[in-house]
Amino acid sequence: MMRGGKDGYQPRPEHHFTFGLWTVGNTGRDPFGEPVRFSLAPTHIVRKLAELGAYGVNLHDNDLVPSGATAAERDRIVREFKQTLADTGMKVPMATTNLFSDPAFKDGAFTSRDARVRAYALQKTRAAIDLGVELGATTYVCWGGREGVETNAAKDPRTALAWYRDAINHLCEYVRSQRYDLRVALEAKPNEPRGDIFLPTTGHMLAFIYTLDHPEMVGVNPEVAHERMAGLDFSHAVAQALDAGKLFHIDLNGQQVGRFDQDLRFGSDDPKGAFFLVKLLEDSKWPGMRHFDSHAYRTEDEAGVWDFAAGSMRTYLILKEKVEQFNVDPEIQQLLREPDERPSATGPFDLTALRARGYAYERLDQLTMELLLGVR
Amino acid sequence: MMRGGKDGYQPRPEHHFTFGLWTVGNTGRDPFGEPVRFSLAPTHIVRKLAELGAYGVNLHDNDLVPSGATAAERDRIVREFKQTLADTGMKVPMATTNLFSDPAFKDGAFTSRDARVRAYALQKTRAAIDLGVELGATTYVCWGGREGVETNAAKDPRTALAWYRDAINHLCEYVRSQRYDLRVALEAKPNEPRGDIFLPTTGHMLAFIYTLDHPEMVGVNPEVAHERMAGLDFSHAVAQALDAGKLFHIDLNGQQVGRFDQDLRFGSDDPKGAFFLVKLLEDSKWPGMRHFDSHAYRTEDEAGVWDFAAGSMRTYLILKEKVEQFNVDPEIQQLLREPDERPSATGPFDLTALRARGYAYERLDQLTMELLLGVR
Amino acid sequence: MMRGGKDGYQPRPEHHFTFGLWTVGNTGRDPFGEPVRFSLAPTHIVRKLAELGAYGVNLHDNDLVPSGATAAERDRIVREFKQTLADTGMKVPMATTNLFSDPAFKDGAFTSRDARVRAYALQKTRAAIDLGVELGATTYVCWGGREGVETNAAKDPRTALAWYRDAINHLCEYVRSQRYDLRVALEAKPNEPRGDIFLPTTGHMLAFIYTLDHPEMVGVNPEVAHERMAGLDFSHAVAQALDAGKLFHIDLNGQQVGRFDQDLRFGSDDPKGAFFLVKLLEDSKWPGMRHFDSHAYRTEDEAGVWDFAAGSMRTYLILKEKVEQFNVDPEIQQLLREPDERPSATGPFDLTALRARGYAYERLDQLTMELLLGVR
Amino acid sequence: MMRGGKDGYQPRPEHHFTFGLWTVGNTGRDPFGEPVRFSLAPTHIVRKLAELGAYGVNLHDNDLVPSGATAAERDRIVREFKQTLADTGMKVPMATTNLFSDPAFKDGAFTSRDARVRAYALQKTRAAIDLGVELGATTYVCWGGREGVETNAAKDPRTALAWYRDAINHLCEYVRSQRYDLRVALEAKPNEPRGDIFLPTTGHMLAFIYTLDHPEMVGVNPEVAHERMAGLDFSHAVAQALDAGKLFHIDLNGQQVGRFDQDLRFGSDDPKGAFFLVKLLEDSKWPGMRHFDSHAYRTEDEAGVWDFAAGSMRTYLILKEKVEQFNVDPEIQQLLREPDERPSATGPFDLTALRARGYAYERLDQLTMELLLGVR
Repeated sequence: MMRGGKDGYQPRPEHHFTFGLWTVGNTGRDPFGEPVRFSLAPTHIVRKLAELGAYGVNLHDNDLVPSGATAAERDRIVREFKQTLADTGMKVPMATTNLFSDPAFKDGAFTSRDARVRAYALQKTRAAIDLGVELGATTYVCWGGREGVETNAAKDPRTALAWYRDAINHLCEYVRSQRYDLRVALEAKPNEPRGDIFLPTTGHMLAFIYTLDHPEMVGVNPEVAHERMAGLDFSHAVAQALDAGKLFHIDLNGQQVGRFDQDLRFGSDDPKGAFFLVKLLEDSKWPGMRHFDSHAYRTEDEAGVWDFAAGSMRTYLILKEKVEQFNVDPEIQQLLREPDERPSATGPFDLTALRARGYAYERLDQLTMELLLGVR
Repeated sequence: MMRGGKDGYQPRPEHHFTFGLWTVGNTGRDPFGEPVRFSLAPTHIVRKLAELGAYGVNLHDNDLVPSGATAAERDRIVREFKQTLADTGMKVPMATTNLFSDPAFKDGAFTSRDARVRAYALQKTRAAIDLGVELGATTYVCWGGREGVETNAAKDPRTALAWYRDAINHLCEYVRSQRYDLRVALEAKPNEPRGDIFLPTTGHMLAFIYTLDHPEMVGVNPEVAHERMAGLDFSHAVAQALDAGKLFHIDLNGQQVGRFDQDLRFGSDDPKGAFFLVKLLEDSKWPGMRHFDSHAYRTEDEAGVWDFAAGSMRTYLILKEKVEQFNVDPEIQQLLREPDERPSATGPFDLTALRARGYAYERLDQLTMELLLGVR
Repeated sequence: MMRGGKDGYQPRPEHHFTFGLWTVGNTGRDPFGEPVRFSLAPTHIVRKLAELGAYGVNLHDNDLVPSGATAAERDRIVREFKQTLADTGMKVPMATTNLFSDPAFKDGAFTSRDARVRAYALQKTRAAIDLGVELGATTYVCWGGREGVETNAAKDPRTALAWYRDAINHLCEYVRSQRYDLRVALEAKPNEPRGDIFLPTTGHMLAFIYTLDHPEMVGVNPEVAHERMAGLDFSHAVAQALDAGKLFHIDLNGQQVGRFDQDLRFGSDDPKGAFFLVKLLEDSKWPGMRHFDSHAYRTEDEAGVWDFAAGSMRTYLILKEKVEQFNVDPEIQQLLREPDERPSATGPFDLTALRARGYAYERLDQLTMELLLGVR
Repeated sequence: MMRGGKDGYQPRPEHHFTFGLWTVGNTGRDPFGEPVRFSLAPTHIVRKLAELGAYGVNLHDNDLVPSGATAAERDRIVREFKQTLADTGMKVPMATTNLFSDPAFKDGAFTSRDARVRAYALQKTRAAIDLGVELGATTYVCWGGREGVETNAAKDPRTALAWYRDAINHLCEYVRSQRYDLRVALEAKPNEPRGDIFLPTTGHMLAFIYTLDHPEMVGVNPEVAHERMAGLDFSHAVAQALDAGKLFHIDLNGQQVGRFDQDLRFGSDDPKGAFFLVKLLEDSKWPGMRHFDSHAYRTEDEAGVWDFAAGSMRTYLILKEKVEQFNVDPEIQQLLREPDERPSATGPFDLTALRARGYAYERLDQLTMELLLGVR
């Protein structure tokens, strides 16, 4: 039933499911252990995901083109990759830059205290933008994983913000100068791998955008796991981004609160939160990509990786069906109704009534849980 | 469907569901707001819970007998309460003491730095034990909510532990001297209302028991919310208590990680965790009370309180049914099987094979989630 | 030494230290216990704080004027309070509204699902603004403590944001219509007393401001405890607010990460974080009020309250002195220096050098800690 | 001043400071980045730490002897290492086994679902015990970093506990059979690298010990960072271990609450917590090793590593001096005094007095903070 299925949960390209090459390609290395899986060739990943019903793949520059490749090697790799995309109908809607693996970025990329590192990070990012555009990407994600500190003695945070802004402004200018059809999506994370990362939540990122030279080009890429690490409600952050017209991309996964970055399979740890997220995306008819930024448990071999990928999409579709059910459930909808009357702005107010009334949210939540558990 | 139901999720006394008088009786006061509901008479609570299918109620001394009542008042209250129990068939399986509301306990009860407070706390507890036994309780719970500090300058933690141990030893002696048929269950909590509470988790409590004079009389009362506040897996803690023969009672509710004590309706925020907890209790055929130590949202009126109570029990029964389904699902059970062969203790070991094998946990977890979501 | 002192840590009005009436007036009620201290008359608070060296007090409407007071009572209370201010030279730089204690606000004030509650909340806030302006306040704080949910089934977060925006827009219009010299400062909090509060961090609040009708009138009031509850670096949030010209007010206190709202004495739990916060405020010559939004431990009597107030101010001044020391410490300043040269934007980059270099942050942090511990 | 110093904070062997080979030898690899430092030869580490004033080093088997070394290679490596120990006077008081790096341990070592892995883990541990004893170790630490799950569907936690117990019992039998003078110290951690690790806190580990065949041989190795990850007060856990006679070893470092395992320099993030820990160890005259299980920031080169090591020891000695100061400070000691009188067990109790009294903990804590900040 799970790996295919005639049960209505079969993913298809129109569902806009995407995966990063780095997600299904994750080899299972962690802070305490060596890789447990071999690297998968990008073309192999594309073919497998196409079989499973995905719409496309996303990538960091070095997911496809190894660091240090010659121009000729790069061109050959890109040519073969584009051929595989053409063969399978898969797209590359989003691209990004690896600004965290190289030891040169140990103190950050755009906010390193070393001006040479900041310049190198911009050069590398311009090249990654070129690569992404060549592959058809219309969204460019910036995740500043190393933009932070372990000790606040190291940097004045005002200076770091100024450097960060200079970098994003520079990249927007570059996109404009090249007349690329590309929007920038900023991705926040509170910590890990740095002790504290600048602009730690989707809220901080949204606020930062308004201080840029070209705010209209820049939005956010909220990630379930990153907001949950700080114990924040993810759907609220996404609603704020939607409200501001700034939801340019989204990273779907799972995460337990207050711990290391787990990047769990979407819906596997907090199905209620996942349900309200799918509800928000579907109710608002958000047209963007449903990108799974997660990876298989380290206990898995390659078969487990594809189970993980298939399960991510299935769970989304299961929850989507439940959203439709919620939206037409008569008892639930009845409980959500409030009287239409518009009260006077100046009163008098019947405080006794306002204090006594109940909102029936226990019943509403119980019905929601029963719907989620499939017994309704 | 929810408030009664012919759907197999109808609670009955043999399910051993209990509620504290303080839980359904919670008036909705919180640190920032006044009560939103009137107090409910204990006899009213007993009657309503009996109607809903509960087995019994539990209580703090002052939930039933107000602080400062005369002996005559106390006796009258107890008499009427016992009559209601008899009328409804409801039981009082557990009793406890309020050692936290009175300002006298501001620096703790058993571990207050003031020796007079420590003596008073013991006296109050002996009286509460008498009351509980009179009502038929066979489990006495100790929750040391104020046993802690805001600053470690105030107390040497070794001294505090010694005072704590003296208190529990004293109470055990008292129970023995009275020849009561009563076991003691210690309940841990990491913080709130104190900055840090001594013996903060079920693990610390279990360890403490072995240092007592009568460890055989003492076990634990783990609470979902308290272990989750610290981000710990609740079912693991319960398994350890079961393993040690020390699961004397349990408090079922819901809680998000890393925040104030929410005491949410059981199963309402982490249905996966709730499922594995029910699985553990049912698989181990644990005979104890399923006690709901939680309360209705503050948005609710009295009707919402009973929705909350009914929903708590229904969710347990829904999850119990899913546990039975999990235990006979052929695909799930197949994935759980490992070869029986017993390897040599000294090798040789085929490390290449051990490194390459996958455990299929992504698939196993996806099937579990689909079962939980009712699409399997 | 502590309660006065000729040691250079004596607070004076020019230090701009303020306290809320509700902070030193806190009676020690908590979710599990009754008040432990008597209410203090506002005029008594003003006189005591003036003696201790504070600049002023802040207040919620109902901290001064009880809910339900007649117009005559209100006027008498205000008159006497103003007389005490005049007698002592104390100011009221900030005012706010209590939109959380009254059961009417159980589902929120500006975002209650009940339109009557939303209208009442606005009316109450307009009156509180009038009161604040009458007392001389130039900053009006909005803390939406009840603007949230326990279950996302209850409200679409996009609707809630729209209601929230309508409310702030309405209040800004009111301030303009009255030609008040008053700025609005929004205060974020992630949770408690609601399960999840909308606009949970200073970042989310900052972003929200840009969507208002009069963003120039609105800034933020970050609070140490609220950002720390979510494990975020507070000084980074304050730096972002400063960078955006939006730091209109600040709430100083202490808090341990991932637990209930503690409102500890400033500097008492994380002196390193407090040091970098003071450094940021002093280095940026921020002219605003140093407001202590915290309260004495519940173990304290009234004498303990004044110890708490005096200690809050002393610790700020101690840290301020350490900031001055940090800024002239030759070894620390040497470590903070980077070469001035401006690298080429296009490379080549000496990656080997960038990868090999160290940043000496361990040494820098150790020197900072030794300075903080007073052994340098 | 920092790197040597005639200032009384110069570490010497009698202070019993130890480091793991893996701590100063950490190459700075993390989940998102490659190593930034070269591996340091164990003999180089020993010499450098001896110069800095350490007492000894601790090691995992594979820190010294690479996985897959022949018997001859092992013997040569061990011989050279012992020579360096002899040359420098350094000791190896503790040894442990790497049961987490090898992909074979992906589902755990003692609790892997694969019986072959469990057997291999025991064999590897017996060999590591032999190595440790050969080097003079008298404490053997077990950290079960991979003993856990990402999904509770994978293992019944009761079974996992039984496997865990079998393993420790087996190892105790082995130690007895070899007549080794060796005690076992169990180290808890709540999560990372596994989603949830079994026996997640020092409390759970202490409780587990009482269920073993030879509890007298087994104690705990609490680690600051691991207890702090769960937001628990570390000194309380250590006090409980001391109280039970089970503090066999300790891991000193720093960690912010609710995030990935940071292993920060001791005292660098929570000096107040570090102060009360040092106070507990020194006040109880605990004779064990002060082991620093931490590593330099990833921004550092090798010079930064030695700054880190030197700073760890200096900070301990600075705090030790402050403990002595606290213990003789007349004002602090006066505040800690309570009347000696022993109250009657049966009352009457003067509740009015008990409710009204204050404990002066604000003043006590303020004095403590001023002492800590060096202004007292």
